[in-house]
Amino acid sequence: MTIREDAAQIIRESIKEVLPGKSVERALAQIPIPETGRLIVISVGKAGFSMARAAAQILGDRIDEGLVVTKYEHASKKLNRFTCIEAGHPLPDENSVKGAEAAMQLVENLTPDDFVLFMVSGGASALFEKPAISIEEMNSITNLLLRSGADIQEMNTVRKHLSKVKGGRFAKLCEPARVETVILSDVLGNNPSVIGSGPTYPDFTSGEEAFAIIEKYRIRVSADALKALTDETPKQLTNSRIHIIGDLSYLCEAAKKEAEKLGYHPLILTKDLTCEAKEAGAFFGAIAKTYQHSERPVALIAGGETIVHVNGNGTGGRNQEMALSCSAYLDGMKNVCFFSVGSDGTDGPTDAAGGIVDGNTVSRLRQNGRTVYQSLLNNDSYPALKEANNLIITGPTGTNVNDLSVLLIRPEVR
Amino acid sequence: MTIREDAAQIIRESIKEVLPGKSVERALAQIPIPETGRLIVISVGKAGFSMARAAAQILGDRIDEGLVVTKYEHASKKLNRFTCIEAGHPLPDENSVKGAEAAMQLVENLTPDDFVLFMVSGGASALFEKPAISIEEMNSITNLLLRSGADIQEMNTVRKHLSKVKGGRFAKLCEPARVETVILSDVLGNNPSVIGSGPTYPDFTSGEEAFAIIEKYRIRVSADALKALTDETPKQLTNSRIHIIGDLSYLCEAAKKEAEKLGYHPLILTKDLTCEAKEAGAFFGAIAKTYQHSERPVALIAGGETIVHVNGNGTGGRNQEMALSCSAYLDGMKNVCFFSVGSDGTDGPTDAAGGIVDGNTVSRLRQNGRTVYQSLLNNDSYPALKEANNLIITGPTGTNVNDLSVLLIRPEVR
Repeated sequence: MTIREDAAQIIRESIKEVLPGKSVERALAQIPIPETGRLIVISVGKAGFSMARAAAQILGDRIDEGLVVTKYEHASKKLNRFTCIEAGHPLPDENSVKGAEAAMQLVENLTPDDFVLFMVSGGASALFEKPAISIEEMNSITNLLLRSGADIQEMNTVRKHLSKVKGGRFAKLCEPARVETVILSDVLGNNPSVIGSGPTYPDFTSGEEAFAIIEKYRIRVSADALKALTDETPKQLTNSRIHIIGDLSYLCEAAKKEAEKLGYHPLILTKDLTCEAKEAGAFFGAIAKTYQHSERPVALIAGGETIVHVNGNGTGGRNQEMALSCSAYLDGMKNVCFFSVGSDGTDGPTDAAGGIVDGNTVSRLRQNGRTVYQSLLNNDSYPALKEANNLIITGPTGTNVNDLSVLLIRPEVR
Repeated sequence: MTIREDAAQIIRESIKEVLPGKSVERALAQIPIPETGRLIVISVGKAGFSMARAAAQILGDRIDEGLVVTKYEHASKKLNRFTCIEAGHPLPDENSVKGAEAAMQLVENLTPDDFVLFMVSGGASALFEKPAISIEEMNSITNLLLRSGADIQEMNTVRKHLSKVKGGRFAKLCEPARVETVILSDVLGNNPSVIGSGPTYPDFTSGEEAFAIIEKYRIRVSADALKALTDETPKQLTNSRIHIIGDLSYLCEAAKKEAEKLGYHPLILTKDLTCEAKEAGAFFGAIAKTYQHSERPVALIAGGETIVHVNGNGTGGRNQEMALSCSAYLDGMKNVCFFSVGSDGTDGPTDAAGGIVDGNTVSRLRQNGRTVYQSLLNNDSYPALKEANNLIITGPTGTNVNDLSVLLIRPEVR
């Protein structure tokens, strides 16, 4: 196998490990579902349908009632025992409210013997919303806060207090039944009060703080909103537990395992990479320069979500920029390959999932009249990598747990 | 010992390993000096005096004649058997020519039994020069090329051909005697044709190429210059060997060894770090985030020379920027420390050698009304780190083998 085939296998196998179905399967092997009592399954998020389908396959008739709330055109088929609602993303709409209302209704009148399996994936915050006020006022307050320069923490504090299902309130509604939340996380660090705005996780912000933020930015709100703001969110929940069942860490560990299978000595450098994409590529390039003649095959792995400061008007994405930037350092190396890929199969506004480069990339670019420097300057990584046959194309994978970057080095003969 | 004391010890001990004296000592234990024949020692560069002094201490009366060519105010004392010349840097001046002429005279009329020990450190290219033309025309051609947008390789090709001592020509002048060159390298990658412009290393650029560059940029030159340009540099040298006796690699390996002594599991990530300083700091920060709860003490080491794109008007240096940027990620961590330090003891136009940060840095900055973000935006790392007691101050160390960056993590109790 060529080193590029090794890379392709690592990409394929590690993304497989964090697909919604696989993640739910793994989780349900661990979480004991009681044999009696009502079992309600609610699956919210962009992967809502696949997660529900996996649960249905495993739990079958044990499920009494189910609900999927997902993005438009994301509920592909009918699912027995499940109601499917498609709703707005990234901004909540009327259907987001319908979804939340349907969930609230499902967990009404439960007993201590009953059990709610709550499944959350990316996008849940917008797709699942029941404001204490009108959805219009909710969105307008959000916009006013944004324009006033409120930070993301201030925004979330206010929005949680204005919601009937966020900030732990949904778990409260499930009482006295237990609710176990399984999360496919697209949030770096997996903060459960940030993921989907924490419907089943205690909220540690106070109504007073929420009110102070509205005052600080001089936002005019309705009397209903004022009342909701100062209404306290649950600070403690005895019926709720959170499980991260798939995330960047699973992705990195799967890449590590696969690299090891292929004979590489793997090392995860970080699962928290957030720096400028092209500089992360340069850092990997510097590692390659030092280890290019390594006598043992090595795989250096990083997970994260880098950023791109856009100055040019080209086409590309953060993974493509990272790979293209790295290629400048790999020029002429024979036994080295670097890739960076978005686990959701998309990178920026392109049809590529990321970039995969090696010691030939720079000369292929040159043949096409391009340079790494100019392409990066214009944020134009896509055409450069495309012409050099250095794009990763997977199509939408159905999951999203951020990005994986791997540098492979092996001795020329093995 | 606190983790910061560990860091201080690693800085101290690893710089010690690459001091000029120590490096020469190590080299002379390896290079056999013949017992008979004339022995000439020539030491050129900013560390020229210390390297010569170390050689004199070891070889004593065995040395027949010696020469030091160093920067103004860098030849601290008299040295027996040595002539000391101080010359221009970073631009060569008349004394640079005097230095080269003195060296040329010393190696005249040598026999196959004679031996030249040629010692090179940073700055040698400017300090040691005998142009085939006037020094004024040499400097003017350099300036014209620079302004025409010639790249560093084109510049060097032309300058080597215009010099009587660069591009292998000095080794040629030593014939039929042997010349062994020992280098304390401040050039990443240690390319011997770049260090000091390679006085004793074969030159693989041709007179034709040099001429083509002058034509390309339409530089007008004298008849003497034209003749010198097409004069061929040596493509092969049978009497010359090159030894890198101290460089970034020694610095990194020494840091690794010292970290190991202190109980850390060390890993050298790269010896070729060249990306944007603050982004390298962010990358180290991402590693810290992932490994902050590591059960075993780890030391992650990088060597290189990062860059800073200056947009602000503050004070600082690349090492200070890297450390300050990293500190944002370390906030609140209890068992983590990161430093970056210039081995020459200076970082940018400041009296600091670099920065050393930990989990308290951000709160100390806050107390002083500063933020990492604002300080970096204004390239103002120095005052921020100074007020937080996070500067590394060593004073000039007398060596220069680029920069060392180390992240230390240890369990809270050990």
